[in-house]
Amino acid sequence: MTPPPHEDRPPLAGSLEWGDPRRAGRRLPDTQQGMRRRNLSRVMHAVREEGPLSRAAVASRIGLTRAAVSTLVDELIRSGLLEELGPERPSRVGRPGSALAVSGSGPCGIGAEVGVDHLAVCAVDLRGEVRARAVRHGTNRGRASGPVLRELTALIRQVAAESEREGLSPAGLAVAVPGLVARDARTVVRAPNLGWHDTDLGPLLPDDLPLTVDNEANFGGLAELWLNEAAPRDFVHVSAEIGIGGAVVVDGRLLRGTRGFAGELGHVPVRPEGPACVCGGRGCLEQYAGEEAVLRAAGLEPVGNRVGLLAERAAQGDKDVRRALRGAGTALGVALTGAVNLLDPQAVVLGGALSDLAPWLLPALERELARRSAGPVCAVSVSRLGPQGPLLGAAHSVVRAVLDDPATVGGAA
Amino acid sequence: MTPPPHEDRPPLAGSLEWGDPRRAGRRLPDTQQGMRRRNLSRVMHAVREEGPLSRAAVASRIGLTRAAVSTLVDELIRSGLLEELGPERPSRVGRPGSALAVSGSGPCGIGAEVGVDHLAVCAVDLRGEVRARAVRHGTNRGRASGPVLRELTALIRQVAAESEREGLSPAGLAVAVPGLVARDARTVVRAPNLGWHDTDLGPLLPDDLPLTVDNEANFGGLAELWLNEAAPRDFVHVSAEIGIGGAVVVDGRLLRGTRGFAGELGHVPVRPEGPACVCGGRGCLEQYAGEEAVLRAAGLEPVGNRVGLLAERAAQGDKDVRRALRGAGTALGVALTGAVNLLDPQAVVLGGALSDLAPWLLPALERELARRSAGPVCAVSVSRLGPQGPLLGAAHSVVRAVLDDPATVGGAA
Repeated sequence: MTPPPHEDRPPLAGSLEWGDPRRAGRRLPDTQQGMRRRNLSRVMHAVREEGPLSRAAVASRIGLTRAAVSTLVDELIRSGLLEELGPERPSRVGRPGSALAVSGSGPCGIGAEVGVDHLAVCAVDLRGEVRARAVRHGTNRGRASGPVLRELTALIRQVAAESEREGLSPAGLAVAVPGLVARDARTVVRAPNLGWHDTDLGPLLPDDLPLTVDNEANFGGLAELWLNEAAPRDFVHVSAEIGIGGAVVVDGRLLRGTRGFAGELGHVPVRPEGPACVCGGRGCLEQYAGEEAVLRAAGLEPVGNRVGLLAERAAQGDKDVRRALRGAGTALGVALTGAVNLLDPQAVVLGGALSDLAPWLLPALERELARRSAGPVCAVSVSRLGPQGPLLGAAHSVVRAVLDDPATVGGAA
Repeated sequence: MTPPPHEDRPPLAGSLEWGDPRRAGRRLPDTQQGMRRRNLSRVMHAVREEGPLSRAAVASRIGLTRAAVSTLVDELIRSGLLEELGPERPSRVGRPGSALAVSGSGPCGIGAEVGVDHLAVCAVDLRGEVRARAVRHGTNRGRASGPVLRELTALIRQVAAESEREGLSPAGLAVAVPGLVARDARTVVRAPNLGWHDTDLGPLLPDDLPLTVDNEANFGGLAELWLNEAAPRDFVHVSAEIGIGGAVVVDGRLLRGTRGFAGELGHVPVRPEGPACVCGGRGCLEQYAGEEAVLRAAGLEPVGNRVGLLAERAAQGDKDVRRALRGAGTALGVALTGAVNLLDPQAVVLGGALSDLAPWLLPALERELARRSAGPVCAVSVSRLGPQGPLLGAAHSVVRAVLDDPATVGGAA
């Protein structure tokens, strides 16, 4: 088979990518070796999504002969990616002895998050379960990248060791940061709320695992796409910790942009002559709906668990806090009107810290979207993953990379 | 070959599409018949892009045997899509007698444009040359769709007859309109500057040609992509006639959105409490940079060739007109800052009527983008196609559809 004329163009900067933000994105080469690798991936996806399955069921689902599937399955079992369930185990298939499942003791993905107020690491297995986790609270604002990443490395080693004790072997490390990341998937170009710029995280993190660094909102958007079965395939994901992040998903793929900076919703102008912003602009969304702006508008000091404080006060009926959150919701509505006009998505999804504040943000946000739309209003929903989204998205990106090209594990590539 | 796991998902609303906005977008089926059709397309593209070529040269370029290519070429000659140049004709290949070229007398695309102040139709052959053209000036504002499309139909018949006299046969009709078009590619959902809404153009246009209706800015963006060899593969195209239109191209594909409404840059809020807009919102870009807003700001009456009037007065140094155009450029800069933050494109391209006003819009637009960007500023360029872009994009979309699936012509499908 030959690809249609447009598809054999080489991918360029700015292209949309599949699945995992960096590694699983590439299309495997159109050779016999590439075909084998694609078929290994199809077996893994079939078993992951519909398993346990017999070899015959896998063959019929992916349209290959049973003999071909058996060869692929044997290879996946040898690499520790699939396992055969014992005959005593009940399953959906006729002959339980032959049922295949994704291994719960094979490779795992290590996800890590550098938050402004915390560090977090987790390990997710091929079945999608979180198997180990570590968190450290405390501000990272204004701290140099060296000491922060030394602490993060200690947490990563702790989680990796714990996952190894569970019989897992870490296949890669993905790190979520609250800032812009270059397309090399290592360099933080600008993370104003940490105070980092042009920082290559590679030398500061464990060098025994393949590394991917990405923006926290991108990982949050991917987590929504991968872990929420009801997620649309076209949406704008808005998340927040201190800043406001965004991710644009089009046709089930993350839109990255030429430099990898797409989705910067926080710096969409809301009022052109508004307050100066760290980005160099004025009146950006972050100046109205960022955590500090909301705290300031509510007359609160920015200390401790800020989102928790806002949610608590709002729940208690604090009028100043509720007014501040209404203002933030209105500003979100203005910026999202622009995004909806440009992208025409199926939905807007609020994630990250915003999901905890949604009850007080949503009414003003939805009112603003509605009063600015002549046609049907874009649906707004709240992510069920909440603040865990970016961390889970990071760990799952490693898992997706393994499922999308299983040959990279076990030396079979 | 089997597609990688993610690619066999069915395309959904909101998906990105290749080439022609509606018809060439679909991927041909993965069967032997589909393979033959893809190979016919690859032969056409090779000859179009690099021809004249011998059969052997085509075979080496697309990686098929010479025998296979000969069979495909014979079919394309029978269908009138390719022609053999005579031996007397000089060419780049060793044996001039065998050189193949895209036919200058085969199928052609008919493009039509419903402008607020004009109607235009043209025929473009497979080589990309305009072979017939007709224009009627006069306002269509507030006129019912029936009489307008009767006039357009007369122009279409005139251009079709002229192209037939030239030995061409119209393969399809594509119509550009200044409004939102449903994903059925026939129904104008809303064209406020014409006063049309929920209007199916199908019954009002010639029924002997396959029909595609699309937004004028989308066709303008596609024309830029197809006809400007230096065009980036990721850009935001801004065009204007009375309203402000936009098209978003990502990785060489037009972003359509869930309902087909993506790219509505004209309704991105610039000042949230600004003047009420026809879209239901307030302070939209169109209220600052639309033609009428600029005429009003310059103290001019909206009559006759308005863009021509503004360009003439600005060139004469009229201070009010220049100030009004600076204001429009500033508003464009604010709205495009939002678009650049969301999409991170390689470039912004000004097309349509805006290209004639670019000398006076660009300085303020670029200053605004620069002062709102911390990093490198997105490049802004002016389309060389100018106001012809949408009409050419429409005609070329039909030509692209033929090149992308030549079997649809000549009964070979």
